[in-house]
Amino acid sequence: MAAEILISECGPRDGLQIIDQVMATADKLAWISAMHRAGITEIEVCSFVPPSLMPQMADAAQVVAASARLPGLTVLALVPNLRGAEAAIAAGAHKLTIPVSGSEEHSLANVRKTRAEMVSEVARIVAMRNERAPHVPIEANISVAFGCTIAGLVPEDDVIRLSLALVEAGVDISGLSDTTGMGNPAQTRRLFTRLIGEIGDKCGAAHMHNTRGLGLANNLAAFEAGVRTFDSSLCGLGGCPHAPGASGNVATEDLVFMFEAMGVRTGIDLERLIAARAIVARALPGVPLYGMLAPAGVPLGFVAASGP
Amino acid sequence: MAAEILISECGPRDGLQIIDQVMATADKLAWISAMHRAGITEIEVCSFVPPSLMPQMADAAQVVAASARLPGLTVLALVPNLRGAEAAIAAGAHKLTIPVSGSEEHSLANVRKTRAEMVSEVARIVAMRNERAPHVPIEANISVAFGCTIAGLVPEDDVIRLSLALVEAGVDISGLSDTTGMGNPAQTRRLFTRLIGEIGDKCGAAHMHNTRGLGLANNLAAFEAGVRTFDSSLCGLGGCPHAPGASGNVATEDLVFMFEAMGVRTGIDLERLIAARAIVARALPGVPLYGMLAPAGVPLGFVAASGP
Repeated sequence: MAAEILISECGPRDGLQIIDQVMATADKLAWISAMHRAGITEIEVCSFVPPSLMPQMADAAQVVAASARLPGLTVLALVPNLRGAEAAIAAGAHKLTIPVSGSEEHSLANVRKTRAEMVSEVARIVAMRNERAPHVPIEANISVAFGCTIAGLVPEDDVIRLSLALVEAGVDISGLSDTTGMGNPAQTRRLFTRLIGEIGDKCGAAHMHNTRGLGLANNLAAFEAGVRTFDSSLCGLGGCPHAPGASGNVATEDLVFMFEAMGVRTGIDLERLIAARAIVARALPGVPLYGMLAPAGVPLGFVAASGP
Repeated sequence: MAAEILISECGPRDGLQIIDQVMATADKLAWISAMHRAGITEIEVCSFVPPSLMPQMADAAQVVAASARLPGLTVLALVPNLRGAEAAIAAGAHKLTIPVSGSEEHSLANVRKTRAEMVSEVARIVAMRNERAPHVPIEANISVAFGCTIAGLVPEDDVIRLSLALVEAGVDISGLSDTTGMGNPAQTRRLFTRLIGEIGDKCGAAHMHNTRGLGLANNLAAFEAGVRTFDSSLCGLGGCPHAPGASGNVATEDLVFMFEAMGVRTGIDLERLIAARAIVARALPGVPLYGMLAPAGVPLGFVAASGP
């Protein structure tokens, strides 16, 4: 039976970008393949940024090209600007995601552009895509949509307005990111309900970090609001190095467990997914791995919605 | 403004009972006092079990007597049987909680009684209470209500029937425990919705372990079903020693953060609550502490529903 929701694995991008170690290309591909074998159908495999800024992503084009050979996999690449988008399309990425900050302060600090300037950049990316690769969907995901480490609270009206501007600029879908794990379930439900009310099935991923432990609860609230795409990272990779003990992304295996236990089909085999953790553990010695399902194990009598 | 929900702290009982170390009585009382100062109004301070079986609880009567001097605090004691209940009432406990297994297998393994025999034991406790301390409310909380490590799935009809039998036996409230962290949000919502439909405001605490990371999501689902009392443990104490890395109870500080961020008043001061962790860390050297709010900190711009 078809999956009811899309789990979009972002570990190879969001997980690796904040770790000092550079994972070997072969290890990245082994990890991506193992997740694909477990039934994951969309993986954000890299970001196209200058290798001088992020040596972890220096092999982006190679990773995209190799991942694109895995049957049925949507190879997603993060692109911060037009130059990155051109490189991603040239490498053969199937889908692009562009982060756009929800607060002016975060936008200026992060990409030295105002939000309005980023919307213009997104429009340029869309125009380039329309010309060179019209089949490649573009997502714009609003960072710090649930709170900003510089600005604090981010007005919900700003987030919705920005999302509408991005859809007007031509993106196919627009999601919301709790980049800093500041969101709560009431806010998550409210914001996604509003977003879906405005842009309907152009609503993209809920990308809810687990910094304060609310990742799964926020994903539950997003699901109840109608979201059907969820970003997560195997082993919860993506922990903030400035907050020891604070994991970053919600762990894919825990998220899949929650949905499958609830009777919501993800199409993913939990045992195979858990087994893929060994590749990460081996390739990133000393890096803390998160996720609570793996040490505890699938409970006795567990029935996965997606079947055995 | 009055609290909208009751956070019932169970760390001094559920947290300590599975740790080999015996916490000094003075440390227990310092910890209980610190949580009381943070605004916690109900604490499960001990269980009345034979010291030969559980030396961690040998000072139960002393802890109850000292805790009862804290103004406004409801001193809750766990009692597994009539003898324990007599001792708890003699010590001055304000409220009793009796665990009753949801599965026959767990009941026999745990207390060597069938569920029906436990209902009879509960009736005897109620009769004794009516005679000696009619002002002391009794809660019966159904263990392994969401899944059992021996029996696997526990039929929901069994759980509801057992709860009705306990109310008929005279308990004032009956809650449900996910003792083994096997529950999921859909099940939690379904079971508590049924329970509240059957026994209304006699519905007691949701006691949702965090073994597989779903503790907060399950508490959210229970809240949405109408539950207004939630058990949790500071630092997430109560981890299962047989599952390394798997915490036990949901961390009180994370649970309070979720509700306060959602606009639900707990009456608890988060900064004071987080500060109380230092007492636990000092008193239990080497014991892993959980909870994700403390390392990450309260987010910038956070507004607590209960006020500053």
